[in-house]
Order: sequence, then C-alpha cells, then structure tokens
Amino acid sequence: MQVRIAPIQMNPLQPDAVEIVDQRWLPHRVEVVRITRWEDAATAIRDMWVRGAPLIGVTAAWGLYLAARQAQAAPDPDGYLDHARHALLATRPTAVNLAWAIGQSWEAMAQVSALSAKIQAAADTAARLAREDAAACYAIGGAGLALIQACYARTGRPVQILTHCNAGRMACIEWGTATAPMYRAHLAGIPIHVWVDETRPRNQGAHITAWELAEAGIPHTVIPDNAGGHLMQHGQVDLCLVGTDRVARNGDVANKIGTYLKALAAADNGVPFYVAFPVSTLDTACEDGLRDIPIEERSPAEVSWVQGWDRETQSVRQVLITPPDSPAANPAFDVTPARMVTGYLTEYGLFEGGKTGITALMSRIS
Amino acid sequence: MQVRIAPIQMNPLQPDAVEIVDQRWLPHRVEVVRITRWEDAATAIRDMWVRGAPLIGVTAAWGLYLAARQAQAAPDPDGYLDHARHALLATRPTAVNLAWAIGQSWEAMAQVSALSAKIQAAADTAARLAREDAAACYAIGGAGLALIQACYARTGRPVQILTHCNAGRMACIEWGTATAPMYRAHLAGIPIHVWVDETRPRNQGAHITAWELAEAGIPHTVIPDNAGGHLMQHGQVDLCLVGTDRVARNGDVANKIGTYLKALAAADNGVPFYVAFPVSTLDTACEDGLRDIPIEERSPAEVSWVQGWDRETQSVRQVLITPPDSPAANPAFDVTPARMVTGYLTEYGLFEGGKTGITALMSRIS
Repeated sequence: MQVRIAPIQMNPLQPDAVEIVDQRWLPHRVEVVRITRWEDAATAIRDMWVRGAPLIGVTAAWGLYLAARQAQAAPDPDGYLDHARHALLATRPTAVNLAWAIGQSWEAMAQVSALSAKIQAAADTAARLAREDAAACYAIGGAGLALIQACYARTGRPVQILTHCNAGRMACIEWGTATAPMYRAHLAGIPIHVWVDETRPRNQGAHITAWELAEAGIPHTVIPDNAGGHLMQHGQVDLCLVGTDRVARNGDVANKIGTYLKALAAADNGVPFYVAFPVSTLDTACEDGLRDIPIEERSPAEVSWVQGWDRETQSVRQVLITPPDSPAANPAFDVTPARMVTGYLTEYGLFEGGKTGITALMSRIS
Repeated sequence: MQVRIAPIQMNPLQPDAVEIVDQRWLPHRVEVVRITRWEDAATAIRDMWVRGAPLIGVTAAWGLYLAARQAQAAPDPDGYLDHARHALLATRPTAVNLAWAIGQSWEAMAQVSALSAKIQAAADTAARLAREDAAACYAIGGAGLALIQACYARTGRPVQILTHCNAGRMACIEWGTATAPMYRAHLAGIPIHVWVDETRPRNQGAHITAWELAEAGIPHTVIPDNAGGHLMQHGQVDLCLVGTDRVARNGDVANKIGTYLKALAAADNGVPFYVAFPVSTLDTACEDGLRDIPIEERSPAEVSWVQGWDRETQSVRQVLITPPDSPAANPAFDVTPARMVTGYLTEYGLFEGGKTGITALMSRIS
C-alpha cells in the first residue's frame, strides 16, 4: 500500500508547501497540487478537493501550519492565526473531525509562545494526526476483518459487502475506515466482492471508491444508489459497511446523503449494518444525532451538472441533466438512527449498535 | 394540456406512419420521429425512445398495426404477424401492459379474417387503448386530488409530494398516472410542490418529470435519489406518489429501481405512500410480486455513462463517471412489498394498500 500516492503529505525537505491530491478529477486524472497558504487549504476543504472526515481534519491541521508560517509576515501574528483558525473551522459544517483536529493543533500551539515554536507544534500535530489516523484505520480494519472472516466461514462463498460514498484511503490517510476491513480481508486471502454505491450527487463511490478498489485489485461493481435495496431483498448483500462524518452520544451517525436509505433496507432484510470510524469522529457534545447534527446544504449545481470523462475531447467535462429552469436541492448528509446500526467498528474494536455501544466506547477512551 | 406534444400519435390522414417523441433527448431536445415499420416500434421500446408502462403498451399496439400493414407484402401474412407479435412481446420484460396491449390488439385482429380488416382492427385497438389510457389517468387524478385536497385542508400550506422516476404524461398518453393528481390539484388551485427524484441511472425524473412539471408551471425541485429519506425524516414530505410497471395479486408493486427505498423511508416516518396505476397494470396471473415479477437487467453502460447537455459544444453528450475497468450492474426495477403501500390510486378510485385492496379492486373490475 505504501507505494500509492497519499491524499496529503508534507515533505520535510520542502516545508513551505503541503501536497494534496485534488480529488475532483478522480478517477480520470490523479492531480497533485502544492499549496503554500492556509487560504488554499480552506478552499481545498470547502470545494472538496479533499473530502472525508479524517482527511478534512488533517488538511485543516496542515492549514494551520501554513497559517503559522504566513503569520511570520503579519503585523499581528496571534490575530492572524485566530482569523485563520475560524475560517478553517467554517469550511464545512458536518464532519466533527474538522473542529477536533483544529482543536488539537490549537492546543499544541498554545503551549509555546515563540512563533517558530508554534510552527513546529502545528507541523508535529498535523503529522501526528495523520500517523494516528492511519493507525486507527488499520485497527478498524482488524475489527472488520473478524466479521468478514466469520461470514466467509459460515457461507464459504465470496463475502458480498455494500458500501456508500467513499470512506476509503482517499478520505483518510491510509487504509480508509469502511475500506480497511476490505483491504485486510483481501490481503488475508478471503474472497470478497464490494457493491459500490455511485453516491449521487458527487459520485464519490463511482469516482473514488471504485478507483481505490480497482487499484488494490479488489473485485467490485458500481451500482446506482437506487439498487442496494433490491440487492438486499434478493440475498446479494452479506453486510453493509460505511463510514461516518459524526457520531452522536445516542449512537446516531451522520454520513453521506442516502446512507439512511441503505440502513432501512438492511434492517428490513436482516442484513447487518456496520459503521466504521476512528474515535475522533465521536462528538461527545452531541446528545441526539437526528436532532442536533447540522446538515450541510451544498450547491444545487452539484445535482444539475454531472462530471465525467468525455471520450471525444479526451477531457473531464460537466453535462447538465436537468431542465435549465428546474431548481435542485442538495442536502449533503443524512442521519442514520442508532436503532439501525448493528455495530460500530473502531480502533478499540467492535461495539454493538445503539447508545449502549457508544457508552461502552466512551468509557473505554475516557 | 391538449396543445402539448403527445408522446405518440397517428395522423389518420397519413396512416403509413406513427409519430413518437424520442424521449432519450429530453429535456434538451424534443425530437419527433416518424416510424413506418414494426421493427422500429420494437427498437423504440427496447432502447427506451418510449418508456413507461402505459406508453409501452400503446406503442406495441401501434407496432402491431404497422406489422399488419407490412404483412401485406409478406408471402405468409399470418406467420409474419405472429413473428412481429413475439418480437414486440420480447422487447421489455417487466411492464405487464406490454403483453396486455398486444393481447388486446391480437384478439381484435383475430376476430376478422381479411388483412385489410386486421389493419383496421389494429388501428382501432391502438387508438382505443390510447383513449382509454388518457381517461384512466384522468380518473386516477381524481382519486389523488381528493387526497391532496384533504392534506391541504389539514395543513393549510403547500402540499409536499415526492415522486420517483417518471409516471407522467410522457409515460402515458396524457395526464400520467402519478402526475395526474398533481396536474388536477394544480388546476384546482391547490398549492403543491413536488420533490422529483432524479432517478438514476437513466435520470427519468431529472430529464422528463421535471420537464413535464416545468411545462405545466408546477413548482418542483429535483433531488438526488439519496435525499428523499432525509426529507421525510424532517417532515418535508406529506405524501409519496409513484407509478408502477406491474402490480401482483398480493399487492406488491414493481416500479423503477429505488422505489422500494422510498417506501421504506415513508413507512419509517409515517409518510403515506401511494401507487397510481390503471387496471391494465394489474397482473392477475402473478400471485407474489417479490417472488415472481421478472426484473430486467439493463446495460451497465447506462450506469457508467451519464447523458446531459454540454454547454460548450451546445450538444447532448455522454460522460463516463466510473473508472474505465470498473464493472457496473443495472437492475432496472425493484419490488415494493404490499405492506408498505398506503393505497392504490386507480381509475376505479382509491383502494387500501395490501392484498385486501387489490382483491377489492379485482372484484370491482371482474
């Protein structure tokens, strides 16, 4: 896995910039962008050059690092840094990792007074968050591997996994959350096949998850978001495995719009539904997910215009799929009630779905 | 409504051809095609130039009419006609109206012996089916209008209706099935707003339903198929209203892939879920819909390639949204279990959801 391009990285020999993959062009082009200003990190998060809860957090942390470097030229470095922090916090509303990562960096920077020390603290924190994220995902993979192994032992045929959106290595730093169990099962020689929801409107499943799985040689099939219920009705899904952008204390999980519909179908057909996340995604301040998690409303243009590869011009283009005067709405996430979650896969292992499981997880980490 | 272009029509002064709207180009172009051979009618059905259960039936009936005209030049007219009948029957597997309409025409043609009389019988039957379809849709609209009126009387604010795919006038001859209540409410001055599922992979909602509603001046918003559950969780949908391609005796309904997911969300949130259809869609030979209705598996290319309007070249183009080597699957329909249907809207009025309602409907028409 190590030879593959990372979604974000800083080369210590070239500390003036952070390199990110501009994921808007996947799977058609792998475009690496060097950013040197925190404003570009904010744009990259807001305009989804990077996306996925863990990666958003790490990108914001590197953004604070860039801000600290830029602060060297500012008349009021502390004020400058505080402004950058607030702007980074405001880039996306739903993923809790954003505030969490910024909080971690900010705390580390507050421990030292010299600006040069703050720069170092920000770099250390961003690098540590990235390292911890990769380790957490690997551990999540272990918890999921056990489930997949058990399923294979029971059926003796390839394990059919359905996933929604991209909770893969490009949403994280390495391994991914929902995909870590898939990679680890594949490496362990357990035959699996993944149904990849295309995940309208931005098609992160078709664009990124499929690309990641293809890269790893894992058998998969892209399906319209509409198809999962039908597959579950006909016994073609052994388990659902998704990521999440925020988990509430009551066990509700916010994830890409449409996740709730798959959870409903899983519950209706007795298919286990697992949610994978590192504990940084747990929002202990949020009591009730369905009531309290803010849902980002994104641009209608993301619904009306679809991006893809145009064979004739050999370029990435956008085409309009709606009548020019028809409005569109684009809520980016939905909340799956805890009662529909079979279990949570975390770096601390598997916890049962619902408030009981989250309470157990919280007592484990406190 | 009468001034709008019909999805299919035959001009008695030019009886050598049938005119159909090639719906593959909507909403970007309204393209009318003249077809003179039954083979073209078969292609139009198979390749979805026309779609929607009632329109498929009427198109097949006009196809038989064209076949009867062509049979005049065949050495064995009866054999020729029988071949055409079987080929038309094989164009699409899920909609029951196809076999039903062909059966009606075939029976009428069998009553007469001269080929010229068969031609006339086929034309009369096709015209009658079209007329009856429009009348049935108008009556369905009346049954739905009462529901919408009641909802408006209760809430006093615009009635929020969610629909999936296109069960509109372009799927029928006039009024549509699921859309007839919307037109009639709009004409009656009841404020409504329609959430239009884009309906991947072929986007009939975004392409056709939105276009029809815009044409009629009915407020609507296109949403990704993923969004409906979220809207229902937050009280933004008063009722779901969809069409169907086949209804079984037990009350199960086959409709465009993804309908089942909306029915699940409706049930989970106490949103009434209505299915609109003319009785020609009832398959009295099918006992159990989930078990017995054949589900068409269409080309993976419909998932991988998305069609839309390219502003730069001012043309309709297709773009690839998946990695070139990732396979895709494309089941075209799913079956919504009867237990999730609140009621059936038919030309005989409203019947309660489930087997009881279908049994009542059947005793009404027998």
